[in-house]
Amino acid sequence: MTSPPPNDTFLRALRREPTPYTPVWLMRQAGRYLPEYTATRARAGSFLALAKTPSLATEVTLQPLARFPLDAAILFSDILTVPDAMGLGLYFADGEGPRFQRTTADEAAIGALTVPDMAKLRYVFDAVAEIRRALNGRLPLIGFSGSPFTLACYMIEGSGSADFATVRRMAYGRPDLLRRLIDVNAGAVAAYLNEQIAAGAEAVMLFDTWGGLLSAAAYRTFSLSSMRAVLQALKPGPDGQPVPTIVFTKGGGQWLDDIASCGASAVGIDWTVDLADARRRVGHRVALQGNLDPLVLLTDPDTVVREATAVVHAAGPAPGHVFNLGHGIVPATPPDHVAALIETVHRESRATRASA
Amino acid sequence: MTSPPPNDTFLRALRREPTPYTPVWLMRQAGRYLPEYTATRARAGSFLALAKTPSLATEVTLQPLARFPLDAAILFSDILTVPDAMGLGLYFADGEGPRFQRTTADEAAIGALTVPDMAKLRYVFDAVAEIRRALNGRLPLIGFSGSPFTLACYMIEGSGSADFATVRRMAYGRPDLLRRLIDVNAGAVAAYLNEQIAAGAEAVMLFDTWGGLLSAAAYRTFSLSSMRAVLQALKPGPDGQPVPTIVFTKGGGQWLDDIASCGASAVGIDWTVDLADARRRVGHRVALQGNLDPLVLLTDPDTVVREATAVVHAAGPAPGHVFNLGHGIVPATPPDHVAALIETVHRESRATRASA
Repeated sequence: MTSPPPNDTFLRALRREPTPYTPVWLMRQAGRYLPEYTATRARAGSFLALAKTPSLATEVTLQPLARFPLDAAILFSDILTVPDAMGLGLYFADGEGPRFQRTTADEAAIGALTVPDMAKLRYVFDAVAEIRRALNGRLPLIGFSGSPFTLACYMIEGSGSADFATVRRMAYGRPDLLRRLIDVNAGAVAAYLNEQIAAGAEAVMLFDTWGGLLSAAAYRTFSLSSMRAVLQALKPGPDGQPVPTIVFTKGGGQWLDDIASCGASAVGIDWTVDLADARRRVGHRVALQGNLDPLVLLTDPDTVVREATAVVHAAGPAPGHVFNLGHGIVPATPPDHVAALIETVHRESRATRASA
Repeated sequence: MTSPPPNDTFLRALRREPTPYTPVWLMRQAGRYLPEYTATRARAGSFLALAKTPSLATEVTLQPLARFPLDAAILFSDILTVPDAMGLGLYFADGEGPRFQRTTADEAAIGALTVPDMAKLRYVFDAVAEIRRALNGRLPLIGFSGSPFTLACYMIEGSGSADFATVRRMAYGRPDLLRRLIDVNAGAVAAYLNEQIAAGAEAVMLFDTWGGLLSAAAYRTFSLSSMRAVLQALKPGPDGQPVPTIVFTKGGGQWLDDIASCGASAVGIDWTVDLADARRRVGHRVALQGNLDPLVLLTDPDTVVREATAVVHAAGPAPGHVFNLGHGIVPATPPDHVAALIETVHRESRATRASA
């Protein structure tokens, strides 16, 4: 038996180099829509036990790659590991989103906050290393973190929220406090991603899930500026080359021009954005990643093929598109529809290049 | 005693005519942040009883005008009166948003749907007429409806939703069904707004609360096109002149160019939009309405003054700005902050014009 050749399509697309087809990976590709994931999670006992046990995190990271010809692996973890390492006590109540036992919402708590000892996040770096060994060069591995602002959202509210009212109020009324919190987060996220890179992550992504709730001015001040600071603090990979980076602000479509100038290799776009329009607006400064509505995967195979084809065509033949969903895959997704999606993206993008 | 002269600043700004200052009104200006509203609602027994009793709807419509020098009145009602008149059974569970007893989500229910007899909405038109009599020409009165797509969201899901997954799935998988539902809604909304105009509404607004959840293509197909159809079907006012119109798609900032071409006099923008950038993008085709983050009102008077001034300056000195919040006022808002806001908008906009 010989190993298949390494697939670097994803990394080349992030660098806007020509590729024979459009690479594809899916946010939450390792997750509850896969029965094998549900089985491993049951064995682990909880989501956090799964994320904190490198061998199990490796197992679920690899599961979708065994089923589908995806072009990248992404570390199985959570966006909130950093504040958990700061001592806030991350937990998941049954059927709910993430919660913290303690919030960081007042002068005293924010003043006392420091960048955590990265040893507390050792389980993440061990998982990165173990996944890299298991991948054995077949596919690139993406590391990630929540953005400094998105971490602040959960740290201040203590949980998810429809409108993150406390955070937005602080952005206007106590910008000094929010600034201090976000600066600490930016230092922590940079250290965290640098450790992931040292452990073997070949690209890193910042998930800015809640930046889109801010006013344009507050977004620039609190979210975009801190992502720029993180990106500037990133070290080269073990080969001495810069590691490609992706920033994804959900709801940030109207700010694409600004986001494209933050220093990232690629900008993730959600499903509300017209991808062809996005390309016109940002030119060829950055790669674009996205942006099929994940709910398309709940329809039927013909619709999946039609809508995925439309995204491939909207991206156009120029290099620099990574196909993805515009948000995470939902648990009710039939795995067969994922297979149809990936097959369509590969086939249609090859055809587009052949006719270009 | 003599009456104050009629204040038509709001209507003139919608027509992009020069005004001595920027007019201001606030989404949900009659609402729970006012103790007198809470008292009237308690007397009515429920939100719906309040909305369905013209004398009480008139009373709460006028309450904020007695406190603050607002430049427009807006009918006190709900965005979901039309599907209620279609027989879906609108109700409000304690502490929750609107719900319907029946959904309109399948082929049979959607196929059976028709434009309701406007007599069922008589209580709305009676309220409009009664408010107009009470205003006696002092201030213009705004009528409104939910947009055809936003009505469809609630009719399909039966309630609010974090992601309106069923609706989005239908947009991709059964566009024919969603089209049929939205076409009926558009006919009903046009008839409804025409009756409001006949009863005395001097401007009308479409609240497209959920259009921003759609892909760009689906937004154009399902929400924007149906708002355009409604606007085209509107009749002139009793004076034979066109009635100014406002469309507001929350989360629609990235689509402003398209929205500005839908035929409305003004485009409402939420707090995430950079107002100066919006003006550059749409030119002077339309008036703009917005867009202070309502959570600014939860901070302190100095911050309210600073942030409101920033919005006035972002709008610039050109005619065609109606100051508003970027979303509804929240119940915890101190009324004193609203007073500071309105005073600031009037003062700063006069100063801006004087120095222009």
